[in-house]
Amino acid sequence: MSSMSKEVKPESVSLCPLGMTAAPEQELLCIFGTGDFGRSLGQRLLQTGYRVVYGSRRPHSCGPLPQGAQVMSHEAAAQSAGVIFLCVHRENYDFLETLVTQLKGKVLVDVSNNLKKNVYPEANAEYLQRLIPGAHVVKAFNTLSAWSLQNGPSDASRQVYLCGNSAEAKQQVVETATKLGFNVLDRGTLSAARELEDFPLQLFPEWRLPLRLAFGLTAFFFFYLLIRDVVYTYVEQDKDISFRIMVSLANKVFPIVSLIMLSLCYLPGVVAAFLQLYRGTKYKRFPDWLDRWMLCRKQLGLLALGFASLHVLYTLIIPIRYLTGNQTSVFDTTMAWRVDSYYAMGILGFGLYLLLGISSLPSVSNALSWREFSFIQSKLGYLTLFFCTFHTYLYGWDKFLRPSYYKWYTPPGYMLCLVVPSVVMALKLVILLPCVDRSLTRIRRGWERTDPEGDSKKSLLT
Amino acid sequence: MSSMSKEVKPESVSLCPLGMTAAPEQELLCIFGTGDFGRSLGQRLLQTGYRVVYGSRRPHSCGPLPQGAQVMSHEAAAQSAGVIFLCVHRENYDFLETLVTQLKGKVLVDVSNNLKKNVYPEANAEYLQRLIPGAHVVKAFNTLSAWSLQNGPSDASRQVYLCGNSAEAKQQVVETATKLGFNVLDRGTLSAARELEDFPLQLFPEWRLPLRLAFGLTAFFFFYLLIRDVVYTYVEQDKDISFRIMVSLANKVFPIVSLIMLSLCYLPGVVAAFLQLYRGTKYKRFPDWLDRWMLCRKQLGLLALGFASLHVLYTLIIPIRYLTGNQTSVFDTTMAWRVDSYYAMGILGFGLYLLLGISSLPSVSNALSWREFSFIQSKLGYLTLFFCTFHTYLYGWDKFLRPSYYKWYTPPGYMLCLVVPSVVMALKLVILLPCVDRSLTRIRRGWERTDPEGDSKKSLLT
Amino acid sequence: MSSMSKEVKPESVSLCPLGMTAAPEQELLCIFGTGDFGRSLGQRLLQTGYRVVYGSRRPHSCGPLPQGAQVMSHEAAAQSAGVIFLCVHRENYDFLETLVTQLKGKVLVDVSNNLKKNVYPEANAEYLQRLIPGAHVVKAFNTLSAWSLQNGPSDASRQVYLCGNSAEAKQQVVETATKLGFNVLDRGTLSAARELEDFPLQLFPEWRLPLRLAFGLTAFFFFYLLIRDVVYTYVEQDKDISFRIMVSLANKVFPIVSLIMLSLCYLPGVVAAFLQLYRGTKYKRFPDWLDRWMLCRKQLGLLALGFASLHVLYTLIIPIRYLTGNQTSVFDTTMAWRVDSYYAMGILGFGLYLLLGISSLPSVSNALSWREFSFIQSKLGYLTLFFCTFHTYLYGWDKFLRPSYYKWYTPPGYMLCLVVPSVVMALKLVILLPCVDRSLTRIRRGWERTDPEGDSKKSLLT
Repeated sequence: MSSMSKEVKPESVSLCPLGMTAAPEQELLCIFGTGDFGRSLGQRLLQTGYRVVYGSRRPHSCGPLPQGAQVMSHEAAAQSAGVIFLCVHRENYDFLETLVTQLKGKVLVDVSNNLKKNVYPEANAEYLQRLIPGAHVVKAFNTLSAWSLQNGPSDASRQVYLCGNSAEAKQQVVETATKLGFNVLDRGTLSAARELEDFPLQLFPEWRLPLRLAFGLTAFFFFYLLIRDVVYTYVEQDKDISFRIMVSLANKVFPIVSLIMLSLCYLPGVVAAFLQLYRGTKYKRFPDWLDRWMLCRKQLGLLALGFASLHVLYTLIIPIRYLTGNQTSVFDTTMAWRVDSYYAMGILGFGLYLLLGISSLPSVSNALSWREFSFIQSKLGYLTLFFCTFHTYLYGWDKFLRPSYYKWYTPPGYMLCLVVPSVVMALKLVILLPCVDRSLTRIRRGWERTDPEGDSKKSLLT
Repeated sequence: MSSMSKEVKPESVSLCPLGMTAAPEQELLCIFGTGDFGRSLGQRLLQTGYRVVYGSRRPHSCGPLPQGAQVMSHEAAAQSAGVIFLCVHRENYDFLETLVTQLKGKVLVDVSNNLKKNVYPEANAEYLQRLIPGAHVVKAFNTLSAWSLQNGPSDASRQVYLCGNSAEAKQQVVETATKLGFNVLDRGTLSAARELEDFPLQLFPEWRLPLRLAFGLTAFFFFYLLIRDVVYTYVEQDKDISFRIMVSLANKVFPIVSLIMLSLCYLPGVVAAFLQLYRGTKYKRFPDWLDRWMLCRKQLGLLALGFASLHVLYTLIIPIRYLTGNQTSVFDTTMAWRVDSYYAMGILGFGLYLLLGISSLPSVSNALSWREFSFIQSKLGYLTLFFCTFHTYLYGWDKFLRPSYYKWYTPPGYMLCLVVPSVVMALKLVILLPCVDRSLTRIRRGWERTDPEGDSKKSLLT
Repeated sequence: MSSMSKEVKPESVSLCPLGMTAAPEQELLCIFGTGDFGRSLGQRLLQTGYRVVYGSRRPHSCGPLPQGAQVMSHEAAAQSAGVIFLCVHRENYDFLETLVTQLKGKVLVDVSNNLKKNVYPEANAEYLQRLIPGAHVVKAFNTLSAWSLQNGPSDASRQVYLCGNSAEAKQQVVETATKLGFNVLDRGTLSAARELEDFPLQLFPEWRLPLRLAFGLTAFFFFYLLIRDVVYTYVEQDKDISFRIMVSLANKVFPIVSLIMLSLCYLPGVVAAFLQLYRGTKYKRFPDWLDRWMLCRKQLGLLALGFASLHVLYTLIIPIRYLTGNQTSVFDTTMAWRVDSYYAMGILGFGLYLLLGISSLPSVSNALSWREFSFIQSKLGYLTLFFCTFHTYLYGWDKFLRPSYYKWYTPPGYMLCLVVPSVVMALKLVILLPCVDRSLTRIRRGWERTDPEGDSKKSLLT
């Protein structure tokens, strides 16, 4: 049996000789199930000073178990302890029906997860409660991995969620989890079990909309520029420049998508401000689409930063191939100012962009006070948007009015991508007008007023 | 009323049907104030299994409240519960004077913040305690946002600070906060209330000094180089190269400021060591300016990293414009060694620089032991400083002694910026001398000795 | 004495006047030792509302102590309190032998650390327990610095580890630590004390193997390429290009080492899968070398990312010197496709690489669910490996078969470095074959099954 601790995890902390901790007052806990999770949980409980008994169908051949744990039949194990951890797959819950009498009044902790969402009509824990109505089912620990149980709570996985219908049963589980070193967060009754069970299965739910948007914009501008650049050159000048797709076309698409997505981060805030001004209150709910939009601003911004980083890398690589002596032509000071400003704006914009990205790392944003966070995300954010938009205007320079740039009557991509940021910045300027700003501030302070009834009487815009 | 949960926060966890959790033993808590914060707090308390009663001036028209909460008059609500959360603006505290008798002996939790610092002579919580002397005022939860209350404590905002004069009252609030899933940190008596109230208002207090320094250095070197480069060329050669301000001048200022600020990170440590050597003890306090300087080393270093990053971006962009065939002139191996070493030092220095920056991210530095952190920040830090200084010396190469480079009798910028790092590295070398190092180590180990009395007898330098 | 709080730490929170908090029910704690740690601990305990008494050899001349603390002789102090914090160096423990009677039955908290590992045959706490058998020794707080005690637990250092043989003694220390705002993690009996004492002394133990590997690979390829490039040119063409060592040779070594190390991140996973397929079970332990290898994958990957970043910086710097008009020669579309794809693959690969690096920051990976983390590290990881390998193949292009590139019959470095990634990707492709994948999935789901006995009956590879 001493091979167990080696088997499960080589660097686990040394198991303490049981005799030294197991003073008679130590609580006895029962675990059903001798899989990875059950064994890791038992090991952890033993380390913390609990006594542990496993319930098994075949107590004499259930494989390696943590040193110091007992093994019994399910019946005997259930009767010996007040709290039973059920580390068994939902499909195998039926065997519990034979234990209905032994489990009556016991705390039954369901740690199970499913492999997919929505396979079963009800949560595992609710199904368990229905199966054994006499037990107090508590859903807990399912968001942990066997790995994090073995290693003890790190900074990483210190949070444990639980829910259940019995307050006393939950309190017992809270105490155990706290002794194991976890922070427990009570999510209410067993009706929250499905939410807890779905949590480990989620795959970037809040990134879906921004990713789809990024993909759509990229595809659109890719084909738009493919037609304007490659196809146009092929048709009109009979030249094959298709190889440009890999670098120079990509380096047009990426900054365009990046700028549009950055401005889409700030558009919903502006729209919300105008909506509040129009309604004269902040206590009416925003439409659903605006809410969803506002909730994915961080993701929009990070994707935009990703595209901007690719743009920078592409731009820095390009001179290796293309820029060999084809710019030495005419030199005039205005052009030099323009080109240098263009580069400087781009670099400073990207630098601020990076700063925004860094400040949205969880550990950094947690260290900021509200005021600091909103200063960075709002003030510096708009400055970034301004730099990047100005950078793009400098790129266009005098081409906006020259018909020769409108191949096949379509505007170049960078002109299209200037629409949204220009609109956002114009609207933001309107909001910054003193009279508008005053109204809006008054409405938003209403956020902290205690009498929301009075808000409907507040004045509308100006 | 069921529209409430949608109104406040679309993605909030589903509210549990109250009937299932509200076993008779559930504690009843009272909330005064039905604004955003009051409503979010109530919702969270209900989710955790508490019963909640709101006190309102107009109990029948106070807008949407969390499902399951009761609403009463202030008097009735105050009488029904032992703990009252006051989610009301300080300006509206006067109404409490009419409730003096009902609030006697109750725990009154002040969650308020102000919009600005130093508006009032005393902290809100102290004012409240003066207003209702019979109540036990506890300042708590004010560093949380309504948002973080609704979402439950994330990794982000798990810490709650509190203070108050009554230990029992604080204990009750601690228990509630713990049940809500927060970590509570007791900051002592109500005299700490002002500190807690100022916390959410602070705007990068520890960044002020480094930012001012960075701004001052940037301005100085900008004008210095503007005169030496642009004005000099205009006066002496009658050529307008003002466009160079945007890129090539900036790319001289940034590395200069970066190197100076990096060396200023390490100067105070060296100064402190000499001071300890001189005094022969580490138990005497450093002068104020040194203390302040040492406390902002991290910020100095991060700003220096920001300037270095801009320098790298500018350097990489520049070849696009300037480097078209003007370097093919004479080739000799020494020059090739010098230039290549110059680049290699710069790149390796910047790489280490980035490593230092990454290791000062909160989540990374928390995962390091003291020894690891000090290894990175000290050993690798000096290596970075050495690489960057050497990089600058290689840039200067043989120009230090050629008078033609001293336009208008001023030295080039990079020569000026070498002064501080050279001094720091020379002093550090002195400290690393075996005899000096031995004395210093002895003094610093005194740091862990239990008899500071004996330290004054320790030997001075050598 | 009021100078104390300034002396220890200028920005510490204001000490509360003791009279206000010291209601008679406040617990009294004793601290032996008036060094930095003892004073910081006392200050923190006083702030939290405890009463504190220091034990000192010379109670009347022990230097500045926190305001509100008492000082007594060791005997008197030990008798007055139930819990004694021992903030003294191990070398000075002997004085405790005179206090054996006073310490009988007391909780003795050992906070000591050593300056080096393995200096003493037994842990400090175990030595203490042997010295004072009648006391209940608890090892705790030793992983904290005086600094973090003064500032209160930040996000950084919130975790406190403890161990001890008496459950009640530990419970008392847990309560105090919790009141101070720390999370406590019980590591079992006093036999874990050595582990806790070694923790603050560790210096990147999990980075050793990867660092050695990186160093070995770098050294090998450096000399290999030095011979092939510099020595070969010198011998065969009598030209000294030794200056290339600094930039162009380095820029060959870095990407080679980076690609090999990246593929070494993914090789152990593939090997483990084949081992499981061969054994038909996941319940047999992997060989030791494979376990160690799998545990350092994160470090391998981060080092690989570091080398890749240096490669990118070097590549971007190089055109400044070398690329002045020597590529304008012949232009054909195939070559343009190849070169552009080569750049695009490199950039996209590096972008994904960075994403992998960011996602392994502790605060980011903690915010991910298992499924999200494994998606990034596995799916995106293999995509990164594919991009980088393809990038290298495109670099080689048609040189693989040209004998002129095999100087002195040795293959170029980039060909050597393609071996491991090609093998990893071929093996991964085999694993992705439907029939193999099905067997493997079945075996791995056994991971969650409760009857590991049945696993031996599972089919082997198809």
